[in-house]
Order: sequence, then C-alpha cells, then structure tokens
Amino acid sequence: MRQETRREEIINTAAKLFKEKGYSAVTMRDLAAEMGIKAASLYNHISSKQEILKEIIISLAENFTKGMQNIKQANISNIDKLEKVVQLHVDITANNTYGMASLNNDWMHLEEKRDYYLALRAAYENDFRNVLIDGVNKGEIVNVNIEVMLFSVLSTLRSLYLWIPKKEDLDTQLLSSQLSKVLINGINI
Amino acid sequence: MRQETRREEIINTAAKLFKEKGYSAVTMRDLAAEMGIKAASLYNHISSKQEILKEIIISLAENFTKGMQNIKQANISNIDKLEKVVQLHVDITANNTYGMASLNNDWMHLEEKRDYYLALRAAYENDFRNVLIDGVNKGEIVNVNIEVMLFSVLSTLRSLYLWIPKKEDLDTQLLSSQLSKVLINGINI
Repeated sequence: MRQETRREEIINTAAKLFKEKGYSAVTMRDLAAEMGIKAASLYNHISSKQEILKEIIISLAENFTKGMQNIKQANISNIDKLEKVVQLHVDITANNTYGMASLNNDWMHLEEKRDYYLALRAAYENDFRNVLIDGVNKGEIVNVNIEVMLFSVLSTLRSLYLWIPKKEDLDTQLLSSQLSKVLINGINI
Repeated sequence: MRQETRREEIINTAAKLFKEKGYSAVTMRDLAAEMGIKAASLYNHISSKQEILKEIIISLAENFTKGMQNIKQANISNIDKLEKVVQLHVDITANNTYGMASLNNDWMHLEEKRDYYLALRAAYENDFRNVLIDGVNKGEIVNVNIEVMLFSVLSTLRSLYLWIPKKEDLDTQLLSSQLSKVLINGINI
C-alpha cells in the first residue's frame, strides 16, 4: 500500500470524525486536534470542511459510477452483472467504511456539489433498475415488482458500511459470494 | 380510526420534526410552534423532549418484541415465520414512518432507557437468528453463513422507513408478499 499523502490523511481522519460526531458537530479545530497539528497548517492542504465532505462523497460516488459503467458494458448475463454490483459495493465499502458512512448520512450537507451527487445517484439507480428489467425480459430474473427488487437489494448493499466494521477477519471475496447467493437465490432450499 | 389524544398528536408532530431536522436540533419551542400552541401548554402533556423520544422509540421497540414473541411461538414452518416477520416490519413501518426514522437515527440520544432499548434490539435479533438457525437445521433454509443472511434480510426491513413514504397507494399486504418473495426466494428464475 502506498503512503497516504497529508491531504489524504486529513480526509480520512475527517471521515472518521464525521462518523463519530456527525458532520455538523465537527470543526476544523477538532480535526487539527485529532491529527495533533495546528489548525493553521490544515489550511495548507484543504480550504474548508465543505471541501473535505465534497472530496469524500464525490470520489466515492464517482467510483460507483465508474464501476457501474464497466458492469453495464460487460458481455455477461444480468445475473452475473448483479454479482459484480454486489462485489463493487463490498469492495468500495470495505476500503472506506467511514467515507461510506458520510456518503449515507452527510450528503445533504453538500453545497454546490449536491445536485451533482444526486444526479450520479439517480443514474446509478437507473442503471441498476435496467439490469433488473433486462433480466426479467430475458427470463433470467423473476417477474416480481422491479421497484421492490431494487429497493430490497440496494438497501442491503447500502447498509454494508454499518455491518462490515463489526466483522473480524473480513474476506471480501467470500462475503461478496455469500451475499450474492443470498440476494440472488434467496434463502429457502 | 380513533381520535388522537393531544399527547399522541404532540408525539407524532415531534417524530416528524426529528425526521426533518434531527433530534438534537429540535427544541420544545419548535414543537409548540409547529403545533400552533404555546410552549407552556406543551408541558401540560409531556415533560421533556427526552420523554417524547423515549415514548416514540420504546413503544415501537416493544411492538417489535411483542410481534416477535407471537411469531416465535406459532406452530408454523420457519419460512412462514420469516414471512410473518416481513409483514410485522411492513405494518409497523407503514403505520409510523416518522417514528421508525427516529428509531433508526435517534436511539443513541436515549438517556436512561438506552440500555433497555439495546437489550430489546439484541433479543429481537437473536430471535430472528434462531428462526434462521432452526430453518437451516430442519432443511428449510439454505446453509449459507447465518450472519450474512440475517444482515441481508434485516437491512432491507430496517430501510423500509426510507422507502415506504415514497410509495403512492401503499398496499401493505401486497408489499409484504412481494418483499417476502424477493427476500425468501431471491430474484433469479
């Protein structure tokens, strides 16, 4: 793993504080104290708390968008696409659980990038929906209400940030494959 | 539907405000203003914001506990028990989406009842887990990692409060049965 830059270290520490105290309650002073540096030297690397939030959320949202673009274009079945979507969520979340907490809980505090974030999220959900619709049309996926399926699968994937930190010895490959099984095949024999 | 008492009206209005602004940001003054009454007259019905939070969360948690007690004792298959758990979540959530938002987001602000809430929640999860374990032992449920199944199903059910308010013309029976299908049978053909 390459060395974190000071800027990345600031962003990661901020994400941890946002998770613990909520975005609104954290000050740049708290962040400096947590890092053991002077508040003034924070500003050599970052202009504001808003810039940090934007960086955390937008970079994660863009990772999801990029991942979904690759999955959409792959020449594989819709079930295989869903497995890849599950893997995408497990990988991104395992890599940055604090950031994912911010994405889920603090996106409404975004200022000028809020609409951009919401557009990425809507496009992502739409791509996900289209995988389900195409799967139903091709007879790969059951013909149950699409919105119920989308809600059910996405709710689980969006909750991973709450659950992954509690798991010891996380094996992301194993978790992805178990979760794909449960989400795709259900739990009955 | 019977008439709400003034006390219930206060509690329901508070749950709506907690959802919109977050528990910490809401004052008794805001609540009085929202109801169009004087702050002083609130105190004829309720002693504090904490009392309101306790009433919202503990009554919901106790409803889940009661529902789970009935389901546990029923002489039906574990798959049928899971269907009843899904119905329980849909019914309680549809009946009080604001309260469920508070349960999910504000439970950490509970004071003397926090441990009691956490104990109810842990017992509920344990009863849920035992349905899955018994189902696996009896060959009704696939032998995938129990914690992954529990996390997956519970995450969806706990997210209903985010989703149900967006649905127009909610039919709780239909939603329960569609959701049970998706959670239990999965989505592939």
